[in-house]
Amino acid sequence: MIAKSMAPLLAGASEIRAMFEEGLKLAKVYGKENVYDFCVGNPGLHPPKEVYEAIDYINHNMDPHLVHGYMPNAGYDSTRQCVADYFNRKYGTDWSLNNIIMTVGAGSALCAVMRTVFDPGDKMVVFAPYFVEYANWAYLSGATTVAVPPNEANGFEPDPAELKKILDPSVKMVIINNPNNPTGVIYSPETITGIADVLREAEAEYGHPIYILADEPYKELVYTDQVVPFLPDYYDHSIICYSWSKSLSLPGERIGYVAVPNTMDGFEEFMGALNVANRVACGTNAPSMMQLIVERCIDAQVDVPYYKKNGQELYDIVTKAGFTAVVPQGAFYLWVKSPDENEYDFIKALKEERILGVAGSAFKCPGYIRLSFCIANETIQRSAESFYKVGKKYFG
Amino acid sequence: MIAKSMAPLLAGASEIRAMFEEGLKLAKVYGKENVYDFCVGNPGLHPPKEVYEAIDYINHNMDPHLVHGYMPNAGYDSTRQCVADYFNRKYGTDWSLNNIIMTVGAGSALCAVMRTVFDPGDKMVVFAPYFVEYANWAYLSGATTVAVPPNEANGFEPDPAELKKILDPSVKMVIINNPNNPTGVIYSPETITGIADVLREAEAEYGHPIYILADEPYKELVYTDQVVPFLPDYYDHSIICYSWSKSLSLPGERIGYVAVPNTMDGFEEFMGALNVANRVACGTNAPSMMQLIVERCIDAQVDVPYYKKNGQELYDIVTKAGFTAVVPQGAFYLWVKSPDENEYDFIKALKEERILGVAGSAFKCPGYIRLSFCIANETIQRSAESFYKVGKKYFG
Repeated sequence: MIAKSMAPLLAGASEIRAMFEEGLKLAKVYGKENVYDFCVGNPGLHPPKEVYEAIDYINHNMDPHLVHGYMPNAGYDSTRQCVADYFNRKYGTDWSLNNIIMTVGAGSALCAVMRTVFDPGDKMVVFAPYFVEYANWAYLSGATTVAVPPNEANGFEPDPAELKKILDPSVKMVIINNPNNPTGVIYSPETITGIADVLREAEAEYGHPIYILADEPYKELVYTDQVVPFLPDYYDHSIICYSWSKSLSLPGERIGYVAVPNTMDGFEEFMGALNVANRVACGTNAPSMMQLIVERCIDAQVDVPYYKKNGQELYDIVTKAGFTAVVPQGAFYLWVKSPDENEYDFIKALKEERILGVAGSAFKCPGYIRLSFCIANETIQRSAESFYKVGKKYFG
Repeated sequence: MIAKSMAPLLAGASEIRAMFEEGLKLAKVYGKENVYDFCVGNPGLHPPKEVYEAIDYINHNMDPHLVHGYMPNAGYDSTRQCVADYFNRKYGTDWSLNNIIMTVGAGSALCAVMRTVFDPGDKMVVFAPYFVEYANWAYLSGATTVAVPPNEANGFEPDPAELKKILDPSVKMVIINNPNNPTGVIYSPETITGIADVLREAEAEYGHPIYILADEPYKELVYTDQVVPFLPDYYDHSIICYSWSKSLSLPGERIGYVAVPNTMDGFEEFMGALNVANRVACGTNAPSMMQLIVERCIDAQVDVPYYKKNGQELYDIVTKAGFTAVVPQGAFYLWVKSPDENEYDFIKALKEERILGVAGSAFKCPGYIRLSFCIANETIQRSAESFYKVGKKYFG
């Protein structure tokens, strides 16, 4: 009754669902306020006031046929131009609306690019740890995913030499998620340069493009002086996918884009195909009113210092409790080394103190756990005693 | 550079694009008001006032974390229950939120069902004429589409006997679009009964379910006393896909649902798989605020009598000009027989008088053209002289 091809997708779903239900169960027993749920990636901060103002303005002043009607599948000209202008201001590009396609969130942006590029049998490379939905999306286009092993020795920055080992002519795309989910690391310009060099060499050897697909929904959530490298400055075949889920706290709205630089070989043909892929495989077009909303909020963002404070405080609590963690540089995740070899034992120990985190195995990196700190600051504060208790169990 | 598997999708896109550009070109030469563009399916009526009121209410009174945040992938419990209640009131079902999954428009609803059901090599049956994006969506899951020939003799109602001829064990699904795009016909209870009988017989013979996928975005747009048959009353393996694009004039917003009756074999397993297909392949979840909006507008609809008047007047004009057309019973399309064997010649003749329509070939039914009447009534009125001129050329 259900397609055999659904099996790999269904297998992954049950683990996530189990975790979600665990949280509900604990909340029922102990009360929601006594459960420290660090599982979710659902931003806790409200959207900035510009979002409410934009909704009001659009609802009361704009032509409803424009606001809620069909537009070209790639999105409103005005919204696409607004995004292009943002890049031009910030990165000195000379892009126009033709470089931008609006999408149903970053997920659909990534899917549309994969559909444009992958034939069955092609390969996609990811750097572990990574968001496993990437592999599911590649699977929809018949591509398989191969992972470069986690580079624990260098603070989870990808190792270009390891990437080189894994390449073969069937590799058509490499995903870079920067700032990174789940590690909170910002990949450095040196790392990106190293990756670009390896890929350029492979392109020349294999005689076909290998795209870098940059998934950058966290690009504004930076807590250090680091600059998130702008990939088109490093590599011609870069494609940028973005979502306002994090920067404007709109994850339910499914609003994002794909940006493709002019340096792309066969730029016009590529954009034409991407536009069709987005129409057929990714929901026809990005939600219309939401396009007009983000256009009016292009320079707005949530209270980033709040997340910075959350990250610092959670890091302090976790390390004071005796655990080892990666200092969060961006995104909103703390990546904690499990004191147990099997991190599910660590997760169990945390759960006994009503702390919920996600196993590193869910990101193909056993031995770690991910704690989301996009939650209320009070929850982090109140979780301290529980972390200390668990720490005492491990370290006395 | 671009996946070979994109080729069939790209082939179709260029014809639609050419038509769109033709309209822009004519408007530039003759002025927008002197071009009678009957190509589009973009509803011309504004959304009902309930939509504006709902946006205002939600923006000013609801928790923004709820409004714009993640919800379960299947949608808000309250929205799903509201849709279930609508079915319960209207059709006497006893559904709950578990029967409903909210989607990114009807397109994603159909895609999610196809992804759940189709393995590569499976077949989908459609009744010509049909919306060709159906075949593109099936192609994404590796399924091929076979069409039952147009039943011109019986006013374009599908012929169950012809369906029977085309069935084989690889057929897993049959699409029924009722009221129909592009013919404007409402399939009768007799036709639906006939189709259900044929499919039940085939299910028994082949030993697997054959689903009816009902695409029903036009179900409120009915201009006669006919009742659009409620498929689950006729056939257990019916799945209903819906969008508010037409009934609330929200086509840009991408908001719809899949409804699955309890009578489905393996109901829970099916819904679980459908939920995963929707998450992975169809944009994660339906846009969040728009879910809450349609929940508040569940009994609202656009000014249907306006479309009815449009349909009658366009029918009168076209037939007075000498052409033959199907009386529109529902949806917002007039299906006109081409006086030329090749309908592209007819389209050319119309274009000389600044009338734009879509070739029946685009719906796999040569010899006809489709005129959309979801436009301003004045445009229809003003087009009369042009139709009469073209009629004179053909009929003297």
